[in-house]
Amino acid sequence: MVSVAIMGHGVVGSGVAEILLTHKQKLFSSLGEEIYIKKILDLREFPDSPIADRFTKDFEEIISDLEIRVVVEVMGGLNPAYDFVKRCLTAGKSVVTSNKELVAAHGAELLAIAKEKNVNFLFEASVGGGIPIIRPMSQCLVANNVNEVAGILNGTTNFILTKMIEEGMQFEDALKLAQELGFAERNPAADIEGHDACRKICILASLAYGRHVYPEAVHTEGITKITLDDVKYAEAFGCVIKLIGRVKKLENDMLDIIVAPMLVPNKSQLANIDYEFNGIMVRGDCTGDVVFYGKGAGKLPTASAVVADVVDCCKHLKARKYLYWADGDGKNVISYADSVSKMFVRAACTSEEAQGAFGKITKIAENDGVLVFATEELRFGEFEEKAKQLEVLSAIRIGDL
Amino acid sequence: MVSVAIMGHGVVGSGVAEILLTHKQKLFSSLGEEIYIKKILDLREFPDSPIADRFTKDFEEIISDLEIRVVVEVMGGLNPAYDFVKRCLTAGKSVVTSNKELVAAHGAELLAIAKEKNVNFLFEASVGGGIPIIRPMSQCLVANNVNEVAGILNGTTNFILTKMIEEGMQFEDALKLAQELGFAERNPAADIEGHDACRKICILASLAYGRHVYPEAVHTEGITKITLDDVKYAEAFGCVIKLIGRVKKLENDMLDIIVAPMLVPNKSQLANIDYEFNGIMVRGDCTGDVVFYGKGAGKLPTASAVVADVVDCCKHLKARKYLYWADGDGKNVISYADSVSKMFVRAACTSEEAQGAFGKITKIAENDGVLVFATEELRFGEFEEKAKQLEVLSAIRIGDL
Repeated sequence: MVSVAIMGHGVVGSGVAEILLTHKQKLFSSLGEEIYIKKILDLREFPDSPIADRFTKDFEEIISDLEIRVVVEVMGGLNPAYDFVKRCLTAGKSVVTSNKELVAAHGAELLAIAKEKNVNFLFEASVGGGIPIIRPMSQCLVANNVNEVAGILNGTTNFILTKMIEEGMQFEDALKLAQELGFAERNPAADIEGHDACRKICILASLAYGRHVYPEAVHTEGITKITLDDVKYAEAFGCVIKLIGRVKKLENDMLDIIVAPMLVPNKSQLANIDYEFNGIMVRGDCTGDVVFYGKGAGKLPTASAVVADVVDCCKHLKARKYLYWADGDGKNVISYADSVSKMFVRAACTSEEAQGAFGKITKIAENDGVLVFATEELRFGEFEEKAKQLEVLSAIRIGDL
Repeated sequence: MVSVAIMGHGVVGSGVAEILLTHKQKLFSSLGEEIYIKKILDLREFPDSPIADRFTKDFEEIISDLEIRVVVEVMGGLNPAYDFVKRCLTAGKSVVTSNKELVAAHGAELLAIAKEKNVNFLFEASVGGGIPIIRPMSQCLVANNVNEVAGILNGTTNFILTKMIEEGMQFEDALKLAQELGFAERNPAADIEGHDACRKICILASLAYGRHVYPEAVHTEGITKITLDDVKYAEAFGCVIKLIGRVKKLENDMLDIIVAPMLVPNKSQLANIDYEFNGIMVRGDCTGDVVFYGKGAGKLPTASAVVADVVDCCKHLKARKYLYWADGDGKNVISYADSVSKMFVRAACTSEEAQGAFGKITKIAENDGVLVFATEELRFGEFEEKAKQLEVLSAIRIGDL
């Protein structure tokens, strides 16, 4: 029997407890011994829970319990999660978390403590919810140089964009609907401003390239400025607009990492990932493109990924999984101004004016004095400079996906 | 240093040697020690190889070499691969294979030997080439009851069908092109008759449900009878035709497993998997649908999956990975006649005659005395019985995918 504790009994935490209880026999078969929930930490009361007697409001009861070998952190946020996780690892307990904010902010430090203490710090659920991505990527990484990782990493924004694309719904209406359906928080800033996707691409980039990339180093744009006109003309150009988190390794070993809305060509495997689904593409030098698709959030998908990690920890109580990256200083990340792509532009100008600014352009449409066009590839800094010559209504990167 | 041997220096085998040599430093970082190719078994001569001195034609040199701890089998076919692999495992060497025929025919026996000898028998590359699927599925399995696994498992047939769908190419022409491009063997029977896909769905079913399902127990249809008319009317019905390998767990715990061309609705994630690509959908009770996509074959994709397994074996020389299923007697598989689906039918009949035979139908088209329609759900045995009343030109299952 392995005793575990769960810190947090919200959506994911209650799902973890539920799966550990309902899939008990299956887990026993897989592991060869029972996983016993000894404590659940939450400040609220859950008198109707079948294991109501195991709830505690006191973290000290968990940290001081030597029988508890694995701790699940599903509280979210940095405080007190960071402090609690650090103390658990330092005390020689393995930790499983779904908390992308924590991993993106402190992953390198926590992995280093786990390594030193010879315990595991696993976070499969922090990216892509129920989609296996951290383990498969580790696998791809072994025999591949990963050239690029790109994904639709946030279900809320993807739901909103899909509603705009499929039903011509306005951004605000689609956001409201997402909130009503429970896909978006009451305060949706972390989603729609791209911060959630940013944390996830930081985790994937750190894993892929072995050094921590902190969110502060990543240029991040949300989807709040995307209009139905953008959606319509993107379609005329054979593309859909998706919020993409992407990291590319350049020839000089620098990373080009960004979170931004991008035009994704219809033929891309990422173009058909709709509504609340996530999709992650890993480009390896040997495998070529490999894509992982599924529900990127939600109680049971996320909880099932947490439980798989818990089982892995229980199997490897005395051996570390090979999941590690070193700390990073951001010096391996290029400025977003140096990132190169084609741009999709709507501007109140003529073709001649657009050509005057950008040289060769591909005209997409012209209506009521507004020209819609695509530029050739150029540095974003160069684009911004040249765009000053025109009255630009919107400018979106065209993804090479 | 871990010494390995590679049996077979064909497409995949030479790729494995290439990756082990070119990604040497990366593999060393991951494993913490060197992987040394001590022997390569092949009856041919490779005087230009940088490691030409390590080739042998004699299996006994490998089996008797106590330093060789991991053996890669990439010869293909059952003979002598089965005998060689069995002897390697019995001798306490871990084995990695990409040989789906071998795993589908003898997986349970070889896994049992591996278990007894406390070594690993890994075969990530046997399904989906470079797509990580065996490991992620094991992961999904831990905390999920898998209700269904369905996939496009054969790149050759998918290439042919895509050419028929996208370019209106005839089956024979598309096959010839696939052969010219190296996607199809000179003797393409194993691909186009569905046997290759059958082996792969057998492996996935065995893994998902814990008991070996042998290819003989699986009703298998190829794509040789698919016509451009089928393709055209499928499109009119909002579907594409794909060769699908599928296993479903029924409520009575019996398996409904089949390989057959199916109509896949355009909105399905499997509909957009084109050309030589593979895609595999795993339906878990907690995760929902998870889809894995990538190149299902080819030298480097397949070899990179083999190398990932080799590294895993080297890491776990003294500990088994939890990959296992018991033998099976086929009694948990229902007859294909009892499998239920909607059917897409082209028949030389009137609507009234079709309704007379099948009751409620959905009419898709009617042209020159030929009616194209979809039935409601029914047992395949029932369909065959009722279809006798009509002059049926073609009948294809409609996938619930």
